[in-house]
Amino acid sequence: MSRFSSDVYARRLHEATKATVAAGLAGMIVTPGYDLRYLVGSRAQTFERLTALVLPAAGAATVVVPRLELASLKDSAVSELGLAVRDWVDGQDPYSLVADVFGGLPVATAVTDSMPALHLLPLAKLLGVTPALATDVLRQLRMIKDHSEIDALRKAGAAIDRVHARVPQFLVPGRTEADAAADIAEAILAEGHSEVAFVIVGSGPHGADPHHECSDRVLEPGDVVVVDIGGAYEPGYHSDSTRTYSLGEPDPQVAQHYSVLQRAQQAAVAAVRPGVTAEQVDTVARGVLAQAGLAENFVHRTGHGIGLSVHEEPYIVAGNRLPLRPGMAFSVEPGIYFPGRWGARIEDIVIVTSYGAEPVNHRPHELTVVPVDRVNS
Amino acid sequence: MSRFSSDVYARRLHEATKATVAAGLAGMIVTPGYDLRYLVGSRAQTFERLTALVLPAAGAATVVVPRLELASLKDSAVSELGLAVRDWVDGQDPYSLVADVFGGLPVATAVTDSMPALHLLPLAKLLGVTPALATDVLRQLRMIKDHSEIDALRKAGAAIDRVHARVPQFLVPGRTEADAAADIAEAILAEGHSEVAFVIVGSGPHGADPHHECSDRVLEPGDVVVVDIGGAYEPGYHSDSTRTYSLGEPDPQVAQHYSVLQRAQQAAVAAVRPGVTAEQVDTVARGVLAQAGLAENFVHRTGHGIGLSVHEEPYIVAGNRLPLRPGMAFSVEPGIYFPGRWGARIEDIVIVTSYGAEPVNHRPHELTVVPVDRVNS
Repeated sequence: MSRFSSDVYARRLHEATKATVAAGLAGMIVTPGYDLRYLVGSRAQTFERLTALVLPAAGAATVVVPRLELASLKDSAVSELGLAVRDWVDGQDPYSLVADVFGGLPVATAVTDSMPALHLLPLAKLLGVTPALATDVLRQLRMIKDHSEIDALRKAGAAIDRVHARVPQFLVPGRTEADAAADIAEAILAEGHSEVAFVIVGSGPHGADPHHECSDRVLEPGDVVVVDIGGAYEPGYHSDSTRTYSLGEPDPQVAQHYSVLQRAQQAAVAAVRPGVTAEQVDTVARGVLAQAGLAENFVHRTGHGIGLSVHEEPYIVAGNRLPLRPGMAFSVEPGIYFPGRWGARIEDIVIVTSYGAEPVNHRPHELTVVPVDRVNS
Repeated sequence: MSRFSSDVYARRLHEATKATVAAGLAGMIVTPGYDLRYLVGSRAQTFERLTALVLPAAGAATVVVPRLELASLKDSAVSELGLAVRDWVDGQDPYSLVADVFGGLPVATAVTDSMPALHLLPLAKLLGVTPALATDVLRQLRMIKDHSEIDALRKAGAAIDRVHARVPQFLVPGRTEADAAADIAEAILAEGHSEVAFVIVGSGPHGADPHHECSDRVLEPGDVVVVDIGGAYEPGYHSDSTRTYSLGEPDPQVAQHYSVLQRAQQAAVAAVRPGVTAEQVDTVARGVLAQAGLAENFVHRTGHGIGLSVHEEPYIVAGNRLPLRPGMAFSVEPGIYFPGRWGARIEDIVIVTSYGAEPVNHRPHELTVVPVDRVNS
């Protein structure tokens, strides 16, 4: 497991504190999850015992941690950054250690999105003010990727492209979706990811369910197969790419609908540039599909931000008037779904540049026809 | 993946609603996690898109779910139970769907412990009353295991015992902790678990860190090795058992300290019976160690409840005055730790019966001496 050098985290803590002050809050409280990993490089995963980075607007950042879990900090930047560590033992009240970091109560704070109710409710009671969401404070900081993060996303993108290049050989009629998914998972690791995040192999009618994972359905000649896959690439940035495959030559109507989808995806990528809003990108993809009478077949948002988590801000969805800015990274993944029959999706991760979008995925966007002369019997 | 028959969940929902009424609350809101699995057998795992079981004190239980994730309910008992399902699409406000289930606002509810701040904060704002923790409502229900749950815990216990029986063959000097852990993980699955929950192989000085997982440290003759392992056994109940191994004959002082630990663990198990409090069991284990001057070496609580989650109530810890009742299931796992040198722990899962404790683990409690004539070179 790796992380960036500690100066990256020092800068992030500095920026997070500035954003906390700008939000008029007295501090931020971050339990394990992506914000903790973003801010101090810690992958701690405690649940019922409280671990929390407490970042006061004024004063020293402090990590409250169960004594038992002190070792969970050793891969993080906590010690290099010289953060104060307050450990606690079973039977002690960890929430008062959090409160101690602030000058006095009540205190208005922000808490990380993933903080469970188990800790949030007693903390909120003790702090005397219902906290805000840390996302509202950290949004800009986490959305705008720096050079090292963009580099990690590019490497992750290249790795998943190498996996997609191998996918046709796994999609053999007679094998099950689960067989193919197992091979793909192995390839995700073999091509350099440190973790498999998800493997969706949706064949035939299963492709019509955007979040179908995989099943024992046997692949058949004529199937359209949605393959949506991703993994974590050290230091933990994600790939996420979808391509659609046809086992043998596709039905002409499939080919025709698919070509509209391909235009929709390209148009949405082409629409990306600074100042355009997230929802405008969604509207572009939706518009191309609607013009071809496929509006009802596109049942989800156009995309989601990506980084340390697979899904994060910015969400490319109707209603999100956020203007895009250079350094944002997100998926552009329209899909079309015909319940009970077939589905298709095309997904690239793109990074917003000063001029437009830089995709990190480069596999061909066409419906990839897999020859069906091979049969697994 | 399996679950119990739907009448089990019907009974649980009925009991949960009764407990909600008894707590003076108007309902309970349960996002994905162990409570959702407990109540309706759902393993849904959505994060940023809200999925929630809304259980009003009066009226129909309703599942709010993203349309995209409708398929995630299909393995659950939701449809067999005839629960109302309200799906929503990106751009819609799911929190108002939750509020709609109640007669009017404000409304006092309980929320599942694992509900993330991301959903809890907007929900609390909309509902107009800060929710309580569902644990405070569901505690008794989830702590007292029924026959089918006890049966699952026994099977899980027998499976992990079979793994421990094979552990000595994996602990070969010259191999690393990680090598041994990989073999153990494979054995956990081979012996009938559906998932590996955790594998701790703490050799030599690493055994002194109770939550060390595994590393590239090479096993050496003379090492004391803590092996703490567990997995999920369908329909999702956990095993968790620790035994300590010695590679070759142990140092006499190790043997002496270990024998005290063994007495402490046995005394704690023997202290378990209805009416005794959780903290009394902890006190018994601690007392035996303290009498031998080892109080400072036992740095964690004596145990934790177990079921669908590896750690749940009741916690066997100082300050927990909860009286034990038949059907409770928890670990009894005192340990002794000598920083920089070695550690040892003995852990069984026990079920409280009318008369005492029924352990589900039956491997010998002695320090298991592994012959060191085999060396991996």
